[in-house]
Amino acid sequence: MLKGFSVPLTPQGESALVSMPPWHYSSDCIAIEYWTDPGAVAALLPPGMSPDAASNGRCFFWFLDWQFTGSNDELTDPARYQYREAFLLVEAVIDGMPVNYCPYIFVDNDAAVARGWTQGFPKKLASVFQTRTFAAPSAAAAPLAAGSRFGASCSAHGERLATARIQLEEKVADPSTVFNRPTTMRRYFPRLTAGHHDQPAVDQLTLSLTDDLAIVDVWAGSAELQIPQVAGEDMHHIAPLKVGRGYRLGMAYSVTDLRILKSTAG
Amino acid sequence: MLKGFSVPLTPQGESALVSMPPWHYSSDCIAIEYWTDPGAVAALLPPGMSPDAASNGRCFFWFLDWQFTGSNDELTDPARYQYREAFLLVEAVIDGMPVNYCPYIFVDNDAAVARGWTQGFPKKLASVFQTRTFAAPSAAAAPLAAGSRFGASCSAHGERLATARIQLEEKVADPSTVFNRPTTMRRYFPRLTAGHHDQPAVDQLTLSLTDDLAIVDVWAGSAELQIPQVAGEDMHHIAPLKVGRGYRLGMAYSVTDLRILKSTAG
Amino acid sequence: MLKGFSVPLTPQGESALVSMPPWHYSSDCIAIEYWTDPGAVAALLPPGMSPDAASNGRCFFWFLDWQFTGSNDELTDPARYQYREAFLLVEAVIDGMPVNYCPYIFVDNDAAVARGWTQGFPKKLASVFQTRTFAAPSAAAAPLAAGSRFGASCSAHGERLATARIQLEEKVADPSTVFNRPTTMRRYFPRLTAGHHDQPAVDQLTLSLTDDLAIVDVWAGSAELQIPQVAGEDMHHIAPLKVGRGYRLGMAYSVTDLRILKSTAG
Amino acid sequence: MLKGFSVPLTPQGESALVSMPPWHYSSDCIAIEYWTDPGAVAALLPPGMSPDAASNGRCFFWFLDWQFTGSNDELTDPARYQYREAFLLVEAVIDGMPVNYCPYIFVDNDAAVARGWTQGFPKKLASVFQTRTFAAPSAAAAPLAAGSRFGASCSAHGERLATARIQLEEKVADPSTVFNRPTTMRRYFPRLTAGHHDQPAVDQLTLSLTDDLAIVDVWAGSAELQIPQVAGEDMHHIAPLKVGRGYRLGMAYSVTDLRILKSTAG
Repeated sequence: MLKGFSVPLTPQGESALVSMPPWHYSSDCIAIEYWTDPGAVAALLPPGMSPDAASNGRCFFWFLDWQFTGSNDELTDPARYQYREAFLLVEAVIDGMPVNYCPYIFVDNDAAVARGWTQGFPKKLASVFQTRTFAAPSAAAAPLAAGSRFGASCSAHGERLATARIQLEEKVADPSTVFNRPTTMRRYFPRLTAGHHDQPAVDQLTLSLTDDLAIVDVWAGSAELQIPQVAGEDMHHIAPLKVGRGYRLGMAYSVTDLRILKSTAG
Repeated sequence: MLKGFSVPLTPQGESALVSMPPWHYSSDCIAIEYWTDPGAVAALLPPGMSPDAASNGRCFFWFLDWQFTGSNDELTDPARYQYREAFLLVEAVIDGMPVNYCPYIFVDNDAAVARGWTQGFPKKLASVFQTRTFAAPSAAAAPLAAGSRFGASCSAHGERLATARIQLEEKVADPSTVFNRPTTMRRYFPRLTAGHHDQPAVDQLTLSLTDDLAIVDVWAGSAELQIPQVAGEDMHHIAPLKVGRGYRLGMAYSVTDLRILKSTAG
Repeated sequence: MLKGFSVPLTPQGESALVSMPPWHYSSDCIAIEYWTDPGAVAALLPPGMSPDAASNGRCFFWFLDWQFTGSNDELTDPARYQYREAFLLVEAVIDGMPVNYCPYIFVDNDAAVARGWTQGFPKKLASVFQTRTFAAPSAAAAPLAAGSRFGASCSAHGERLATARIQLEEKVADPSTVFNRPTTMRRYFPRLTAGHHDQPAVDQLTLSLTDDLAIVDVWAGSAELQIPQVAGEDMHHIAPLKVGRGYRLGMAYSVTDLRILKSTAG
Repeated sequence: MLKGFSVPLTPQGESALVSMPPWHYSSDCIAIEYWTDPGAVAALLPPGMSPDAASNGRCFFWFLDWQFTGSNDELTDPARYQYREAFLLVEAVIDGMPVNYCPYIFVDNDAAVARGWTQGFPKKLASVFQTRTFAAPSAAAAPLAAGSRFGASCSAHGERLATARIQLEEKVADPSTVFNRPTTMRRYFPRLTAGHHDQPAVDQLTLSLTDDLAIVDVWAGSAELQIPQVAGEDMHHIAPLKVGRGYRLGMAYSVTDLRILKSTAG
């Protein structure tokens, strides 16, 4: 009897990159609102999704410092279970429902890649950093307070994919005024058999389901964001034309399920 | 029209972790023959495969320095397209055919992970190193010559998973006397939808297909191999009881296809 | 006019690994009290220092997540200025003064190496991790509260050098009951000129000076610590014979000066 | 008795970042000839060196894949003793002697940093890659032959510092027509004692001494080189105005000594 949610499956089940859900997460986040060319957003959407005409190219770029745990105290093995992530959400519509869709996402951990692909997050590896808030007072502490400055960056293969900076101005009383769309993805697993390279084994539009979502300590402020052109990456095609507000917040949730919205294969 | 063999799919097709085949590879390799507990090998085999009674627990542990290219001079972007790999092959039988089966494999590159999962290689990330042969003569050059010593290691999350050393003795005239079994894998893509966590979307036994295979400069010699017990890994259950010969060789091939031997799902 | 505190010195002064002091730091820390063989501690002390007979081999192993800033908002460039550190302090005596002495220290950042060598910290590179406390409530959040469990590890070259776990029990009202010895180091810069390989250009015993020291949110609890034997490292010679209390705290200070206690060369 | 060439010094001498010379090296190298603004080169030179009026801003940018060994089979521990390097040499004059001077150098290994600082190489950490030549024939093999293309890159903190490409045209019969100047450095170790931050403990101009130098398999061809502007780096001030020939070669030597040309402190 081989065990594991993902490969490698083994009799003992210790080697699996991903153990069975529930998966629990807590994070510190920096998110930057911005607007890009609506046509470039439309060109990125998978079949079955439509541009959100009301959005006018609105996107959010997120940076997240994550701590993960399953059911076995995984958080006490931080070399394996902490990771950092950067992703981009574009506004879109599916079957009349306004949603966010995730065309680009980067992490620095293979278990996070495996969990992500299962859900439809098109994860690649990158190095991701954000300024942290420390409790001990210092010019280096970046407290959650008006005037504090935070930076963040995402790089892969030694090239900078995104750089952001925000300066906190005021606390946000009701986060749901800012973060209020469900997140959708394209779950896609290709086939290598000759003649079928463009006929994936799995091709679905999915909706992220989060249990026990908590969003805390949300601050808003001014923001800067650059998404430069880099060889081997297409993300700059939705680089900012205008940057909106920057946010710094804490977020936690658990994952046990995924909703399949539309299925072409799999 | 979104392009790419793998996610992320984009209008321009530059961001995809994996571009369309053909995929071309050349490598330097160290391979260590060893014998482990046959029962531990049998316990690792997926449904549809059987132990090879004649093998008595024979395995090979490989370390590979790879250079990859597709059709666009990818080899001139080594930050993105060089990678290192370590994997373990156990001897088994499928439908009466003696084969190697790959239960564990590690690489240091996300595109290699993505290509591997598509084929059925259960890749995880690791740091992999092997002594290299340099042309300029020096105590540091490790020439291909009797007496030369090579080391290799594989580590993940700051823990050493395998360490090997070989000392070259003689050139191998006919590599097919050593490396003569096809390689099989389990192609597996799980489902996160509640109630289906143990019902994968794709579950197949596959056979690796290699075009234009070249094996060159094969040397054999004495060998050492350790696979220590590490928290969060099961590979030590097939650690060596006896170590055989060590090999150092060059290998190249191209990939354009995959054979599905048996399919349970997908 | 070339500028910089450290090399490389340039007309613009941007490239220097280290800019002129002051250097400001804030951190989250895990510290483990333990006792080792007093003879092994004595054997590690440099000329001019003596064993502390009252200590009976008492040591502390520290893990630190650091954020650094100089005078130019460096904390908003976290890819360059965040780093993680692990070090070991042994109790000793210099000129009758009870002190801590640092024989081993590891960081994951080159600017931290350069600042450390200037002071006398014998830094090497490693990967260092500790469980973090997140604000958003979750099984993954590790709050500062009785019962919370934290892990930490230090690895170099793919080998685990130290692993620790603590479980919080109670807040420490007065940190000075725990952390009350000044830290001393050996500042040492060798010479490569033939015949002088054992005659360093700089060889001094130094005392770390910290401005505006703040120690906050100190919790104590039970602890585990392993320092395994690893090829190419001597740290296991002072591995724990008995483990004491574990601590989790915040610490901040600034650096602008260094006291030279004794100077043999330089 | 504490042992080691560099810190950390221990009774056993295993932990020292650097063991006593001799140090043996072999490498594969890509070197790009180029010309920059002569005034920018002059501005980088330390006191005691002069611009080479005949050079007109001539520089070489090198990428090197190194294998190191001391006297204890270190080359069989490649996780610790292989490393990659990128450096820049500018042409200058000292006491009437035409030399190369090294203002910028990057490596991915801490022992290489420590050996370098002892000699005067102002090393910082970076990720460095170059296309490799493999023996097994493939589109991915990059053989040493006319028409072969090689790439190379150097990145730090997730930003690309240099990118190069060359295409081989012909073998170079006599390498001394290309590589014929000795290499000089500034050996510099700062002081942190307040009031002395700009008064280094060691400040010397040095000359690299190499035993048993071997340069083999030198090919020349066309070349491209970019040194983009990056926050926190000054190297772009000597970016190419004109790019000359590109070279691919093997190089080996041993180090046991260093010549001090001029000494201001230390």
